[in-house]
Amino acid sequence: MPAAQPTARSRVRRIPKRGRHDRETIDAILDESLVSHVGFAVDGQPFVIPMLHARLGDRVYLHGSTASRLVRTLAAGVPACLTTTLVDGLVLARSAMHHSMNYRSVVVLGDAVLVEGPDERAAALEAFTEKLIPGRWAEIRTPSAQELKATRVLAMELHEATAKVRSGGPVDDEEDYALDTWAGVVPLALRAGPPVPDERLADGIAPSPAVAGWAAERGL
Amino acid sequence: MPAAQPTARSRVRRIPKRGRHDRETIDAILDESLVSHVGFAVDGQPFVIPMLHARLGDRVYLHGSTASRLVRTLAAGVPACLTTTLVDGLVLARSAMHHSMNYRSVVVLGDAVLVEGPDERAAALEAFTEKLIPGRWAEIRTPSAQELKATRVLAMELHEATAKVRSGGPVDDEEDYALDTWAGVVPLALRAGPPVPDERLADGIAPSPAVAGWAAERGL
Repeated sequence: MPAAQPTARSRVRRIPKRGRHDRETIDAILDESLVSHVGFAVDGQPFVIPMLHARLGDRVYLHGSTASRLVRTLAAGVPACLTTTLVDGLVLARSAMHHSMNYRSVVVLGDAVLVEGPDERAAALEAFTEKLIPGRWAEIRTPSAQELKATRVLAMELHEATAKVRSGGPVDDEEDYALDTWAGVVPLALRAGPPVPDERLADGIAPSPAVAGWAAERGL
Repeated sequence: MPAAQPTARSRVRRIPKRGRHDRETIDAILDESLVSHVGFAVDGQPFVIPMLHARLGDRVYLHGSTASRLVRTLAAGVPACLTTTLVDGLVLARSAMHHSMNYRSVVVLGDAVLVEGPDERAAALEAFTEKLIPGRWAEIRTPSAQELKATRVLAMELHEATAKVRSGGPVDDEEDYALDTWAGVVPLALRAGPPVPDERLADGIAPSPAVAGWAAERGL
């Protein structure tokens, strides 16, 4: 696993102590987060679109319909930026200006390339489903030839990737610690609720092992 | 409250039934979500950076340090795109390709402008704190003249804003409903845990009314 190299444009400049360039941190954030915000510019106007992503090794994958303008634009090889953010908490300081958020984010710079090899395409599509619920792929109807034809898979390399992490309590100005204002953190996390069966689910079909196991692990 | 006008570049083209152009939907998403992903391009390379946002009326505000390259770049009046996404659930279909996410997103196109009027700046800064925990502003030390000087507030108009919403269960191909695969939705939401006091909090300082009330409303 090669280290991501901070470049002049990917190095964390503002509050550099929050910057992380190790792939372990970058990969963990990409693997936990479900949605990326993918940016590209058309005639100077940037667009930022939410997309699912999945990582395998040194590449982060996106996918979409062959008919999608977004996918066609990205597949043409324009410079792109993929950013994802996990929100971990509200940081409540003694002063307004030191209020903040705890978060973990990753920014990946580079071109998205169209993945054409059938094995890599298949592995990426499996990764998208497995990421939602591990073991799900084995329980469902896998893509038909027609569905594969209608889907494009894109990849961005993780060469130019940076993570940024804020954690811990508020950092107030020294004189403000004398105030009798409550300060601390409210932790936040994306949590699941109990699975809701599809209204067209036939009677007697219980949650599949992957779904039931995933829910049980979370006490749902 | 003027309706946001879909333009050629902001109209939802892919799966148009998911598009929403009414300000009620757009405002509700902006007000619930904490973090935006803000895109801008420098020499053709897009950058997408997570930022807190707060909405007041027809404007969505961003803020940052006067020293921030990001804030300086945006304040120079480059075309920008602010996107925020709320993740509502995993959509588990009977086939791989109909797996999806439930989500609510907003895309705002336009230039970010530097807010210079002191009243609007003050209102925006209060809105950032109040958004985290309503009532918090009255409990904390408000910004000093020096802090105000070191902070820039930016605004984007909501004229060219679009929401996109997917909700409900999976939509499978008709023949796949005969499969005995469990299908449904796993709801997801950003949830708070009990407030954690700052380690430097003096003994005997209980959570403030705003924090305690907010936590109580959520059963924390």
